[in-house]
Amino acid sequence: MQPKLSIPTLLSAISQPYTPKLVATVNSEYDVKIARTSGAFIWHAHPETDEFFYILSGTLTIQLEREGGIEDVVLEKGEMFVVPMGMRHRPMGEAEIMMIERCGVINTGDAEPSNLTKVVEDVRGD
Amino acid sequence: MQPKLSIPTLLSAISQPYTPKLVATVNSEYDVKIARTSGAFIWHAHPETDEFFYILSGTLTIQLEREGGIEDVVLEKGEMFVVPMGMRHRPMGEAEIMMIERCGVINTGDAEPSNLTKVVEDVRGD
Repeated sequence: MQPKLSIPTLLSAISQPYTPKLVATVNSEYDVKIARTSGAFIWHAHPETDEFFYILSGTLTIQLEREGGIEDVVLEKGEMFVVPMGMRHRPMGEAEIMMIERCGVINTGDAEPSNLTKVVEDVRGD
Repeated sequence: MQPKLSIPTLLSAISQPYTPKLVATVNSEYDVKIARTSGAFIWHAHPETDEFFYILSGTLTIQLEREGGIEDVVLEKGEMFVVPMGMRHRPMGEAEIMMIERCGVINTGDAEPSNLTKVVEDVRGD
């Protein structure tokens, strides 16, 4: 059985932005992750999954590449948004976030691997 | 594209406990729902899915039917827990919660339909 976890406690132990932590899996199909953001991430897309964002604190702007140009979705604490599968996007801003997506997703998606590409750390303990 | 939503705004419009609201779907496979709880729900299980709980406010106790007897998992604001697929459980307490589970799950699971059995209301708007 997966343990009960405190999200605020786990967030307080995160020192680096854009280093997603795995806090739960649902049916071994979907991951729930948390992360801290700071500054701009890179443009990328996830060809295999929608990506759910929930803002735990701060403000996250998600830039979306739409047909007509760039659209900014500004998310404050308590707000949520789903980036559709395959849509190119770039998160930016100072925030703490919860994400839901298919298991095994790479944070930088289809972008070239870089120093922003992180293996998700499982923080569920024993 | 699913709309940006404010969870606190949606919660403030919920008058009845245990009436789950659909706020997002991920890949048309998983639902994200919110609800208010008050008092004890009924004992039930979901044979087809794990059920993720995240506490937005208040305190939720989830009673679990384990081999050795009843185990209480007490969840405060900011805490999360996954009820494993098929495990009989009963939520109780005054709380606002977010849930993640497979699409189409009935809130009362395998229990006999009752006045607690609710069709999930989609609050995503247009």
